[in-house]
Amino acid sequence: MATRRIQRTEESRRLLVAAAAELFAEKGYRQTSFVDIADKAGISRGSIPWHFGNKLGLLQAVLDDQLHTVLTAFDEQAGDPLDQVMDFIRLPAARLFITLLAEAVEDGSPIREHYARLHAALRQGVQARIPAEALPAGTSAEAFTVLLVGAVIGVHAQWRVAPEAVDLDAVRTLLERMINV
Amino acid sequence: MATRRIQRTEESRRLLVAAAAELFAEKGYRQTSFVDIADKAGISRGSIPWHFGNKLGLLQAVLDDQLHTVLTAFDEQAGDPLDQVMDFIRLPAARLFITLLAEAVEDGSPIREHYARLHAALRQGVQARIPAEALPAGTSAEAFTVLLVGAVIGVHAQWRVAPEAVDLDAVRTLLERMINV
Repeated sequence: MATRRIQRTEESRRLLVAAAAELFAEKGYRQTSFVDIADKAGISRGSIPWHFGNKLGLLQAVLDDQLHTVLTAFDEQAGDPLDQVMDFIRLPAARLFITLLAEAVEDGSPIREHYARLHAALRQGVQARIPAEALPAGTSAEAFTVLLVGAVIGVHAQWRVAPEAVDLDAVRTLLERMINV
Repeated sequence: MATRRIQRTEESRRLLVAAAAELFAEKGYRQTSFVDIADKAGISRGSIPWHFGNKLGLLQAVLDDQLHTVLTAFDEQAGDPLDQVMDFIRLPAARLFITLLAEAVEDGSPIREHYARLHAALRQGVQARIPAEALPAGTSAEAFTVLLVGAVIGVHAQWRVAPEAVDLDAVRTLLERMINV
């Protein structure tokens, strides 16, 4: 009985995070209400505070979930990390990062620090996988990581606006050459 | 008389573009009305259609204006282009690119094609200044340009969310080493 209740609880949490991720990507964080999320997930609205405290708690769960997906790409077992990252960019859900960024940079945005933590975790994940030999002479691992994470963010932006103008496979090849010197 | 009228017309156009750029960066494109823009510029609301046709025409004027500022950085006379680009990132007005991007990637967004044109012009401007020797062997100039423009977009994003975590000077040094091989 206890096990079944835990399963149901975890399942409803998972459904709420998935619904919130879709709605945040579609309408933004601010414009999305608990009612929207509960309706989409098919779960009672009252369970959101129970799981996540408040809307920022739910956002953090969504970002953690996305981050987990990206960082899994850097696991040794997951296959080529660059392929994983390029596949991630192509997911409809990845649009979330662009939508939320606009809100994160607003003055006094409550989601800025959550976003800063996400970027920091991404940089940490990438930096752990960069061989020291890949660094151009006289540059720091930190700068190289900011540049690589930045390149992925900015290539994603260009591709999402005009997919026909951005050859993701060619960019992948170039990134590979930059990292595997 | 005619000359004075032209001056006044150009001045009012300039004021409207500046006011729109600020408001789009602050509130987004969709949330900004002609009334907001006219009030901020101190110019009658009726002159907006006269100058720009409609709101998309005004957006195009704003993007052209920003593009002009960025591309000026690549003029031989303007000093080091990397310094110019890094200075541009630091301008409060550069936030506009992040705010508008979120709207440009929405389904059926009217501003997507304007944004695509902006990115294409940026890539063209950068590509014209990249020496052939800078290209890593076996990679195309197109991919290298997408990556460089992407890096600037994504470094800007990370810096705006958490300026204390991103050393723009170190990134500048790294970009310089990548271009001046």
